[in-house]
Amino acid sequence: MSEILTKRADDYAQWYNDLVLKADLAEHSDVRGCMVIKPHGYAIWEKMQRALDEMFKETGHVNAYFPLFIPKSYLAKEASHVEGFAKECAVVTHYRLKSDPEHGVVVDPEAKLEEELIVRPTSETIIWNTYRGWIKSYRDLPLLINQWANVVRWEMRTRLFLRTAEFLWQEGHTAHATRQEAIEETERMLDVYARFAEEWLAMPVLKGIKTASERFAGAEETYCIEALMQDGKALQAGTSHFLGQNFAKAFDVLFTNKENRQEHVWATSWGVSTRLMGALIMTHSDDHGLVLPPKLAPVQVAVVPIAKNEEQLNAIRAYAQPMLAALRTKGITVKFDDDDKKKPGWKFAEYEFKGYPVRIAIGPRDMENGTVEVARRDTLEKSVMQATDIADKVEHLLQAIQDNLYQKALAMRENNTRAVDSYEEFKVEIEKGGFLLAHWDGTPETEERVKEETKATIRCILLDGDQTPGSCMVTGRPSTRRVLFARAY
Amino acid sequence: MSEILTKRADDYAQWYNDLVLKADLAEHSDVRGCMVIKPHGYAIWEKMQRALDEMFKETGHVNAYFPLFIPKSYLAKEASHVEGFAKECAVVTHYRLKSDPEHGVVVDPEAKLEEELIVRPTSETIIWNTYRGWIKSYRDLPLLINQWANVVRWEMRTRLFLRTAEFLWQEGHTAHATRQEAIEETERMLDVYARFAEEWLAMPVLKGIKTASERFAGAEETYCIEALMQDGKALQAGTSHFLGQNFAKAFDVLFTNKENRQEHVWATSWGVSTRLMGALIMTHSDDHGLVLPPKLAPVQVAVVPIAKNEEQLNAIRAYAQPMLAALRTKGITVKFDDDDKKKPGWKFAEYEFKGYPVRIAIGPRDMENGTVEVARRDTLEKSVMQATDIADKVEHLLQAIQDNLYQKALAMRENNTRAVDSYEEFKVEIEKGGFLLAHWDGTPETEERVKEETKATIRCILLDGDQTPGSCMVTGRPSTRRVLFARAY
Repeated sequence: MSEILTKRADDYAQWYNDLVLKADLAEHSDVRGCMVIKPHGYAIWEKMQRALDEMFKETGHVNAYFPLFIPKSYLAKEASHVEGFAKECAVVTHYRLKSDPEHGVVVDPEAKLEEELIVRPTSETIIWNTYRGWIKSYRDLPLLINQWANVVRWEMRTRLFLRTAEFLWQEGHTAHATRQEAIEETERMLDVYARFAEEWLAMPVLKGIKTASERFAGAEETYCIEALMQDGKALQAGTSHFLGQNFAKAFDVLFTNKENRQEHVWATSWGVSTRLMGALIMTHSDDHGLVLPPKLAPVQVAVVPIAKNEEQLNAIRAYAQPMLAALRTKGITVKFDDDDKKKPGWKFAEYEFKGYPVRIAIGPRDMENGTVEVARRDTLEKSVMQATDIADKVEHLLQAIQDNLYQKALAMRENNTRAVDSYEEFKVEIEKGGFLLAHWDGTPETEERVKEETKATIRCILLDGDQTPGSCMVTGRPSTRRVLFARAY
Repeated sequence: MSEILTKRADDYAQWYNDLVLKADLAEHSDVRGCMVIKPHGYAIWEKMQRALDEMFKETGHVNAYFPLFIPKSYLAKEASHVEGFAKECAVVTHYRLKSDPEHGVVVDPEAKLEEELIVRPTSETIIWNTYRGWIKSYRDLPLLINQWANVVRWEMRTRLFLRTAEFLWQEGHTAHATRQEAIEETERMLDVYARFAEEWLAMPVLKGIKTASERFAGAEETYCIEALMQDGKALQAGTSHFLGQNFAKAFDVLFTNKENRQEHVWATSWGVSTRLMGALIMTHSDDHGLVLPPKLAPVQVAVVPIAKNEEQLNAIRAYAQPMLAALRTKGITVKFDDDDKKKPGWKFAEYEFKGYPVRIAIGPRDMENGTVEVARRDTLEKSVMQATDIADKVEHLLQAIQDNLYQKALAMRENNTRAVDSYEEFKVEIEKGGFLLAHWDGTPETEERVKEETKATIRCILLDGDQTPGSCMVTGRPSTRRVLFARAY
């Protein structure tokens, strides 16, 4: 295997696309905007799902499943919600095809639905319509439910993983007795996402609150985690919404409180999607292909025997066997690749390109010397190690790779985050990429002007950022604090 | 909690529906034919998924994900396939809504799709269109891929889990170089399903081949597993299809064989769905509620303290703690329910109704005597046990329950499977329910006549059934062997 990859410095967007295709992560399907997630990509997504699902369960959530279809009238019940999603809806209007002698298979006009169904772009409406039947009293609260599902938003310009018409995600939908509890839940789940991003994806994130114009359609407050990609563009990696009582009011979801009075329920929703695959790729990968943090690598260690003949191969198998067993005992996933239809060089290139964190090669000389050759994907360094305690050594190495990837990404972000004080300086600096911290007067007009003139958006108001007041870089009006700007995916 | 459940003997269909609703497994949504799978139901489905997924991976399969939508023309490419699915398709025709001053939110007529999209009823067509790009040479084969997904078939008469417009399932789609390999794969996956049904669901199944009229639309041969429900009706619990070269031909999927010649690829597909939830319920549950085999129970053991005051409760907590730890060390899932808002009697009823396999109660006298009270859900027996080695005892008990459920279901099936020789006898016997083994002349006409006159269908031609020839019970014409008849879900 010798896949040719566009260099990042030459064309980052092309590099990304090449990598996704050639590392067998995903490809475009014939259905406009819908992707096929290939086995190598899906295996990484499965590891993300497993880790997130455990974190959700540890924080008291359970999974459930709600319908794919939403009656049009439900979507319309929350005014700003339908406003936000109406322009990108897949609409089911009929439920039958029939044969037509002239045109082949056609939609049967007799089978028109009385009310059109929308393929869910998100499930607040169908879920809150269901919650009405589930919530009667404060004893039924909190209701802490998550769903793993596919959703559809009819995007016109799509990019694999980053923006597709259909994508996979999880959506948490919780119901609470008080405003305060719902806000705490919103923040708790933001923290879960931040922890997942940092501990599993090895991707540092900044936590903040969106401005009104970037808020989820139907939310009172949208919290987000933002990451910086290698090309200096920001990527929103997860959002957690405090929905107030908007959906409870739209769907008449009331509960009897401890004082025996009827109140509307308080809501949150929160989600991350296969977009995280794009974030993962653009945070760590290089001109040699995919780089995976060990905790998300479907196979963490590939072991390649280098043998001239079947006899040598058998000897290497015997030599490797206790090492493989020791690695597996530690819960490390290992592939011993003795497929003799492929040459070792081809295998090395394949594992490098597909991001296997550690590759071990074993040849006849290693058997003589009691050694193995260990290559790490993140730095591309190779070293010959004594085979004694190899499982311990590899375990430490995997942890070192996980840490190194995080530290490298953190350093990159820190080197590319800076404060700017004038709009002139801002316009110059934004061309270099990165996060810019600048004062803003808090108006949507100024936000929109900056966006139009520089293509930069306010990524968020940092939760734990500097709170020193100042004056807006654009209008000079008072600003309560700096906010985080960037060009974004 | 004191849910009232219709008795099975009074109205089996009503009992089933009551149970699904009241045990919080699922409910109907407002979207016609689509169900909501509630947390307790979904947790069981997750355990099924996890076990099946491991079995698929052990047999060399990997997961991937393909688009939800299928262009209408793709569905039409395989003639018998579209014939089979055209009448129950959800059709997407538009991709945008808009506001209308008079009618609120309406479908935007400007946003009509050039080609309608079908919400997948199954994915052979979109997958084989994709495989064309993945398969070039015999080296790319076999391709062993599975997908976990939602699918939609517009059923007019729906029942929770058993027949719903949207359901969750897995669909395996494999590609092979030879007819023989594809047939082996079809049979291998049928065996996986049979093993899963028997070892996990504790549900005995019969393996067989469908007659031509019951074959999957597009298959050369459909294999199935059939189970007998408590009311004497059969339920098809899983199918595995040998697709021949039908889809490869419809989508031009060719490979270069070892002799360097181009050949069409051989295919299989196989699936099980949330229908298995219905099978599980109808195999084991009783007039007291849900009965779950321990291997699929989200919580296997519920421990309920019985205390008069907080001091006693604390003493019981301390007494129970080492037992809980020992149970968890064995990988047994345990819930210690010290919620003081609910009375013990309420909890007992709840755990019984929702099918927790084992319930342990601990009161003050137990502490004095060094005992616990253990109740098993399958037989409703209670016994006082010494707390010493309780984890070992519970582990054995869970295994005993798993075995007992299987044996009971097996005995039920064996008692309700019989050979009949005349059509007169058949008509009498079919009213009693159960499987009937009878001779059939092999024609669709006879099969159809039996169906119309008795509502019984040929469930399958058993893979390992009696092969003695005879004469058709209806026409008297020669029959090569008895086939399996039943009324079915």
